[in-house]
Amino acid sequence: MDEVPGSLGTSTSFSLRLGQTIFSAASLLFMSLGVEFYSYTAFCYLVTIMGLVIPWSFTLALVDGYAVLVKCSIRQPGILLIIIVGDWVLSVLTLAAACSTVSVVDFLLQCNNGAYCPPKFCSRYQISAAMAFLSWLLSLASALFNLWLLPSL
Amino acid sequence: MDEVPGSLGTSTSFSLRLGQTIFSAASLLFMSLGVEFYSYTAFCYLVTIMGLVIPWSFTLALVDGYAVLVKCSIRQPGILLIIIVGDWVLSVLTLAAACSTVSVVDFLLQCNNGAYCPPKFCSRYQISAAMAFLSWLLSLASALFNLWLLPSL
Repeated sequence: MDEVPGSLGTSTSFSLRLGQTIFSAASLLFMSLGVEFYSYTAFCYLVTIMGLVIPWSFTLALVDGYAVLVKCSIRQPGILLIIIVGDWVLSVLTLAAACSTVSVVDFLLQCNNGAYCPPKFCSRYQISAAMAFLSWLLSLASALFNLWLLPSL
Repeated sequence: MDEVPGSLGTSTSFSLRLGQTIFSAASLLFMSLGVEFYSYTAFCYLVTIMGLVIPWSFTLALVDGYAVLVKCSIRQPGILLIIIVGDWVLSVLTLAAACSTVSVVDFLLQCNNGAYCPPKFCSRYQISAAMAFLSWLLSLASALFNLWLLPSL
């Protein structure tokens, strides 16, 4: 069960998935609560992607937790392949969303000396983008660990 | 020499590298010639990254071309690992640059009904971002093919 740390069904993988869920939820909350995010395409995109990442990571966290507790192996090449493809697609989309958000926030800060971006809102956008980056890093780690495991199955 | 199409030292790899070089150069030229790109951070970032991708892809295209012509194998695990890491880092950076550019262009188009973005300039920014996306796709393909080859060495 523990030849590749971080791959499907290990406690490290459970921690990674839990971290992804927490960071994605934080990013979503910072972006959507009390801020007019829907007037910018990039911010709407971030909210959409985070809304996809949260259920995906949470489900896989549950699966990992179950596998760790019951000590049963859920590793089958077909399932692992689906998880790897999903992880890669979501990590690319998360990176794209985080970069778009950062560049729009940066542009808002430059434009008219920040007249479009009150400090209270802008710092929340920045925190949201930072959380999305952290979620991307953890998602990339999960994808790499699982990809490493695939040839041995 | 041809068990994995697209990996280091094959003619498919040579085509991929050539495509990356051409698309990156097109993206750089569309962004930098006659357009005031240096007033936006995201556009400067795109130009910087394209300036990194062009020599990298061009060098590897030369290496692949040499390997195809002379039919000598240049595959050693150490060299391949460096190329894979470089490809992954550059493809992530290229994706980030392309997404940033697209989101800033989209924002410029929305803001004040496009007053900040004359059609002549904006279409060039968009073409540049599209070229960067194509360069990212080819770079990702190269990285995946080489990663697939690594365990067999």
